[in-house]
Amino acid sequence: MSAKYSIGLDYGTNSVRTIVVNTANGREVATAVWNYSHGTQGVILSRDPNLARQHPADYVTGAEVTIKKALALARKAVKGFQPDQVIGIGVDTTGSTPLPVDRKGRPLALARRFAKNPAAMAWLWKDHTGVAEAAEITKLAREIRPQYLAKCGGTYSSEWFFSKIFHCLRTCPEVFEAAHLWVECADWVPAMLTGTEAPEQLTVGICAAGHKAMYSDAWGGYPDPEFLARLDPKLGELRARLCSRACAIDRAVGGLTVGWATRTGLPPNIPVAVGAFDAHLGGVASGIRPGTLVKIIGTSTCDMMVVPTGDKLADIPGLCGIVPGSILPGYFGLEAGQSAVGDIFNWFINYIQPLGKKVGTHEALSAEAARLAPGESGLLALDWNNGNRTILVDQRLTGLLLGQTLYTTPAEVYRALVEATAFGALTIINRFEEYGVKVEQIVNCGGIAEKNPLVMQIYADVTGRPIRISRSAQTCALGAAIAGAVVAGKKAGGFDNYPDAQRAMTGLKPKAFQPNPRAHIVYQKIYSLYRKLHDSFGTPQPSGSLYEVMKDLIQIRTEARA
Amino acid sequence: MSAKYSIGLDYGTNSVRTIVVNTANGREVATAVWNYSHGTQGVILSRDPNLARQHPADYVTGAEVTIKKALALARKAVKGFQPDQVIGIGVDTTGSTPLPVDRKGRPLALARRFAKNPAAMAWLWKDHTGVAEAAEITKLAREIRPQYLAKCGGTYSSEWFFSKIFHCLRTCPEVFEAAHLWVECADWVPAMLTGTEAPEQLTVGICAAGHKAMYSDAWGGYPDPEFLARLDPKLGELRARLCSRACAIDRAVGGLTVGWATRTGLPPNIPVAVGAFDAHLGGVASGIRPGTLVKIIGTSTCDMMVVPTGDKLADIPGLCGIVPGSILPGYFGLEAGQSAVGDIFNWFINYIQPLGKKVGTHEALSAEAARLAPGESGLLALDWNNGNRTILVDQRLTGLLLGQTLYTTPAEVYRALVEATAFGALTIINRFEEYGVKVEQIVNCGGIAEKNPLVMQIYADVTGRPIRISRSAQTCALGAAIAGAVVAGKKAGGFDNYPDAQRAMTGLKPKAFQPNPRAHIVYQKIYSLYRKLHDSFGTPQPSGSLYEVMKDLIQIRTEARA
Repeated sequence: MSAKYSIGLDYGTNSVRTIVVNTANGREVATAVWNYSHGTQGVILSRDPNLARQHPADYVTGAEVTIKKALALARKAVKGFQPDQVIGIGVDTTGSTPLPVDRKGRPLALARRFAKNPAAMAWLWKDHTGVAEAAEITKLAREIRPQYLAKCGGTYSSEWFFSKIFHCLRTCPEVFEAAHLWVECADWVPAMLTGTEAPEQLTVGICAAGHKAMYSDAWGGYPDPEFLARLDPKLGELRARLCSRACAIDRAVGGLTVGWATRTGLPPNIPVAVGAFDAHLGGVASGIRPGTLVKIIGTSTCDMMVVPTGDKLADIPGLCGIVPGSILPGYFGLEAGQSAVGDIFNWFINYIQPLGKKVGTHEALSAEAARLAPGESGLLALDWNNGNRTILVDQRLTGLLLGQTLYTTPAEVYRALVEATAFGALTIINRFEEYGVKVEQIVNCGGIAEKNPLVMQIYADVTGRPIRISRSAQTCALGAAIAGAVVAGKKAGGFDNYPDAQRAMTGLKPKAFQPNPRAHIVYQKIYSLYRKLHDSFGTPQPSGSLYEVMKDLIQIRTEARA
Repeated sequence: MSAKYSIGLDYGTNSVRTIVVNTANGREVATAVWNYSHGTQGVILSRDPNLARQHPADYVTGAEVTIKKALALARKAVKGFQPDQVIGIGVDTTGSTPLPVDRKGRPLALARRFAKNPAAMAWLWKDHTGVAEAAEITKLAREIRPQYLAKCGGTYSSEWFFSKIFHCLRTCPEVFEAAHLWVECADWVPAMLTGTEAPEQLTVGICAAGHKAMYSDAWGGYPDPEFLARLDPKLGELRARLCSRACAIDRAVGGLTVGWATRTGLPPNIPVAVGAFDAHLGGVASGIRPGTLVKIIGTSTCDMMVVPTGDKLADIPGLCGIVPGSILPGYFGLEAGQSAVGDIFNWFINYIQPLGKKVGTHEALSAEAARLAPGESGLLALDWNNGNRTILVDQRLTGLLLGQTLYTTPAEVYRALVEATAFGALTIINRFEEYGVKVEQIVNCGGIAEKNPLVMQIYADVTGRPIRISRSAQTCALGAAIAGAVVAGKKAGGFDNYPDAQRAMTGLKPKAFQPNPRAHIVYQKIYSLYRKLHDSFGTPQPSGSLYEVMKDLIQIRTEARA
């Protein structure tokens, strides 16, 4: 029998990639990447630092360009490779990244009238313009629907589905009115590929709905119309148009259309899996199972664990969500995360540009930072440049750097920023374990885990635990390909379930980063100082004046920019 | 009668300058600057960020080179100028900058044996290696000689005379043993020029002795031998070799030696005034009088006021000193200060090098920062990269920057650092007024006041007060020249007292920086947040965990570097 292949389509913050994977062994035989053509590195920005959008035209172009290119590369890489050996497709995207669509499911931004209106584009995961609306949703839910918050950390985030839609309603009513529906990017791309984007045909994934839109079968799906109408009657009306049922990734949304088959060279009708978030499928491709914490480390992180749905599980405050079936069917998917990791390092390198663009690269500063001993710089940072997702669930927080002398160097600052993200990571591990979810193994993946051994060693030293790295360099895309293989099924050359697919298609790199016990002792001391800062600036204190400092500055900033 | 001139010699952190001034109108007819040849920009550094030394060979070379050059320039600038029209010399230096000397008053570092030993050099004002010893001196004084601390802010600083000597005794006993005496740079240079450096001939100034060495006529001069011996018997022995009496700047230490006259071309025997610190003489040249706060803004600041010695004056906590005669004879000299101002901006530009050396200059970042509105960046910093002199008197503090997003720019950080120093300045103004010393006028001077209108405007907006700039661009040197004119006396073409000399030789620039009332309102809000950070990190709090954070990090840093 000839080899079978599955395709993973991975929509990131700056680019989209397609990989072609051998289903028998997980070998990635071809990879094609396309950088989005709109905005700054694919992100539409404005003076408001909270705003971050993507243009959906990039989603369409990106699929065609990368699939074609990946197939061409596969032909070169594998003798005799034929596109009809591809048995299925999976899709992962960022999220919550909802986009407004019309009655036919067509993104509003694709209409000339809205082509340049940021409100009509996709509201990228890291868009925080809906801070006030998130607070309003949280407040109302606390009063009348506490159950909605119990599984998403007790606070509804400005990064999430309804905060964004609500903010659009408030600030750009013409777009809200023109939108028949709002669809997560993770749901829209599979619908586009299978021609099921019309609202009556649309399939939505439990991953996005459950983690970002308060969807639960326990209360009949999305939040009830009365609740939404209390926020705004128009949100109540929108409720009736939302899908009634969300599915896990073992379901296909349909078959590839003839149109897309023609555009790409793939066989028509191959199944396209229900879409999910990049991190969750990255978790799948990192071999997630009970006891294994998978951290996808990119611009931000997603920290995931799974617990069998049969087990008793407490509500864990600060988690982004506890959703049955959101990562693996049959398991609670537990999602935590850090709002910025790579983005903080990128900010320092790209915005501050220490020592200039040519000298102050990630590589150069990492190399110099690696020569420093823990604590040697005297610096300590908070990793909050983009707010704090877990455990504080608070976007109205900002970065902090402390300990500067007159001789502090860029490499010292760089290392302090890395350490800050490691302290953030440890805070999440501690939170899981405080609530009885034991972390027995840590598997990291994503670009930083791949490329920066300094970061991984610091994570090992700070957490005092070995750090393993997922074998694949493109885990999210691999997870999507695994989903493609599972929806294709064993008969077609795929798999009938995820454990079988994970066993065949995933693995870890041989090298583990082992914690250095002496470094760990120093970092334990510094972590206790980190927690002092964390708690002083991040939580209301009885005598607490500092809790308001970052928030007041954001308020003053907002007024100054108005 | 032909014009008369006075010479001011100004020993700074990185260079020495000589100016030639017309005594009739304060016109500076010639200026010569020489950059010290040792160390990094004149400062000998080490891995220990607390260490900062100068090589006394630079003091000798610097006098000869700059006086000769200044006289040559004066010949070019003024038709018929003759060096014998110079009637006196004044000297100002940094401080406390003590250097160990042998029995003949010769600096140990000029001996081959010690030429490369940093402990044998001059211990520059910003050297903080004596932190532990400063704490010990403070502790002992609190117990048995509280009066010693009452006039110097309640804490003896690591920047000061005895902390440095004591630290040398502890860490480099061979230098301590070889030193017959320790002499402030401000006293050693006039002694060198007049051949009075032998300990039995040495004259010391009240400015250095009173502000940095707990000297007071009220208790018989320097701290008593019993007190010093309790610190270490060898310090007790040193006491007997210290000068018994300190003088104000209306006294001459002697006449210029024939040797120095020959080396420089000046007439022999012209009087050289008692030396004083740069800032104090800068205060004189800025027209200091009761009600006028003079801020000398350079790498650090010195903030000075005078109060008639007849007035009742409270001990003001946090001030560096309250010393009769230290600025003007007949007035208490009140000295406060910020441990780093220009040094913080220089750190950002020279060490972090945002946007690279060529793009991220002071000029470019100031220009961009000037386009920002107060509060627009959302940033807030503490100006503690070099500790805090007034009002906390604590070197074990470090910098802090808060409010960073993923889009924070170098110009925003630059502005936040400027604002932080303005908040530090306001804290000092408030402290003076809390203790009944009314600030009716603010006169700034120094390089930053001269060159950076953005900084001056921010100071006006933050303080809500007009900011005037001293007319001279080299006030400290001008103050030294005024001292030279006063010790020369009216008969020789100088003056018999300081008010007369100030009236003739000093002035303000016509432009005043007026506070923008709207900016001031925003800054009042931000200042209240600054004070929250200031008090949380800078003072022991009842429930206070943050007070220890910077100190613990310094302790961890010290251990990591050991």
